[in-house]
Amino acid sequence: MRPFVFVNAAVSVDGRLTDWRKRQVRISCEEDMKRVDKLRAESDAILVGIGTVLSDNPSLTVKSEELRKLRILKGKSPNPLRVVLDSKAKIPINSKILSPDAKTLVAVTEKANVEKVEELKKYSEVVVCGKEIVDLKKLMSILYSMGVRKLMVEGGGKVIANFLREGIVDRIYVYVGGFVFGEGVSFAEGRVGIKVKLKSVEKLGEGVLMEWIPTNSNKFASDYN
Amino acid sequence: MRPFVFVNAAVSVDGRLTDWRKRQVRISCEEDMKRVDKLRAESDAILVGIGTVLSDNPSLTVKSEELRKLRILKGKSPNPLRVVLDSKAKIPINSKILSPDAKTLVAVTEKANVEKVEELKKYSEVVVCGKEIVDLKKLMSILYSMGVRKLMVEGGGKVIANFLREGIVDRIYVYVGGFVFGEGVSFAEGRVGIKVKLKSVEKLGEGVLMEWIPTNSNKFASDYN
Repeated sequence: MRPFVFVNAAVSVDGRLTDWRKRQVRISCEEDMKRVDKLRAESDAILVGIGTVLSDNPSLTVKSEELRKLRILKGKSPNPLRVVLDSKAKIPINSKILSPDAKTLVAVTEKANVEKVEELKKYSEVVVCGKEIVDLKKLMSILYSMGVRKLMVEGGGKVIANFLREGIVDRIYVYVGGFVFGEGVSFAEGRVGIKVKLKSVEKLGEGVLMEWIPTNSNKFASDYN
Repeated sequence: MRPFVFVNAAVSVDGRLTDWRKRQVRISCEEDMKRVDKLRAESDAILVGIGTVLSDNPSLTVKSEELRKLRILKGKSPNPLRVVLDSKAKIPINSKILSPDAKTLVAVTEKANVEKVEELKKYSEVVVCGKEIVDLKKLMSILYSMGVRKLMVEGGGKVIANFLREGIVDRIYVYVGGFVFGEGVSFAEGRVGIKVKLKSVEKLGEGVLMEWIPTNSNKFASDYN
């Protein structure tokens, strides 16, 4: 049993998530920022890798007050659960993603430093999940048991590649913005080699929004709605 | 004075031109193959880098007999001129691009082996253009003086990046097909860092066709029609 999993990312025309310094550039237009905020608000959890935390220091909260209120009206927390893949527990304690605005779950492995894990437990939940790299299927099952039915994967490229390779992505949203970087982190980093089927495409603001369905996706829990 | 230059490429969702083996996979659908053939037929010359010649051995001719006939009716050769960027004159003499189906121009530099250049002259025209890497602006001027008013750049990633960086691309056509590779040659390989403006987007067959206009493009010759 696992949540419905979707990937959302903004890329340049050459498929990069970042510029050559491996730093995130604002690729999205206003319309896309709103769309992403709505996707976040509709999710039970939002997941990123430690690389993204270290380079971009995102807060991963819902920006719109209205959308947060709507969540509360539905009996949810104002913000979805934040999940970090951090096999060696490298996350700095002052990372925005550990702020008290929302709950955070850090998924580490048996390789993580025990003291750091203990310290981390003051700021977030921690699960040990896998020996050297985070066992994604196990993590999906843990998230499911915590009530997560819809998981948003926001990157970076290695995390996206790992999810796609393991067949645990049900939908891909890619916004293509008006840049060509030529260097930087790509949408998927690490051998994947899968086919995806186009669900929809539209012009959105100054860019293009595409929705793709991976053909290798394992079935998610049938009680997802 | 230079020709109108456009780039055309088919990429995966993660912006790759090739799979992890750096070999071209057929990303395009039937509809896109026809579109590309038409673009070729409407061009005066088609350009690729030596990397593409070595890995894919393309013939770069117009596939449709009808389109070739149409060119002849307009007083043109059945196929556009083929241009190879090959600074060190590494092109194998039995490459399809040197076939007698169409004329070929190989652009080399002063670093190229003189004997190889002499041999090459039996199969193609050769211009020495630049010291270590092919001087693209000079080559554009040579092509213009040869009557080329519309140049199609088909790749690979390094060639596309070089053209974009130098501001000599007027249009980019990108077809996004239903694959995620995760590794392989990207659409642009080597620091570029430019903005592009969306001209159009449409669903084409099983993929997406986007047209972008680079904002750094130098003006092409005014007599292009």
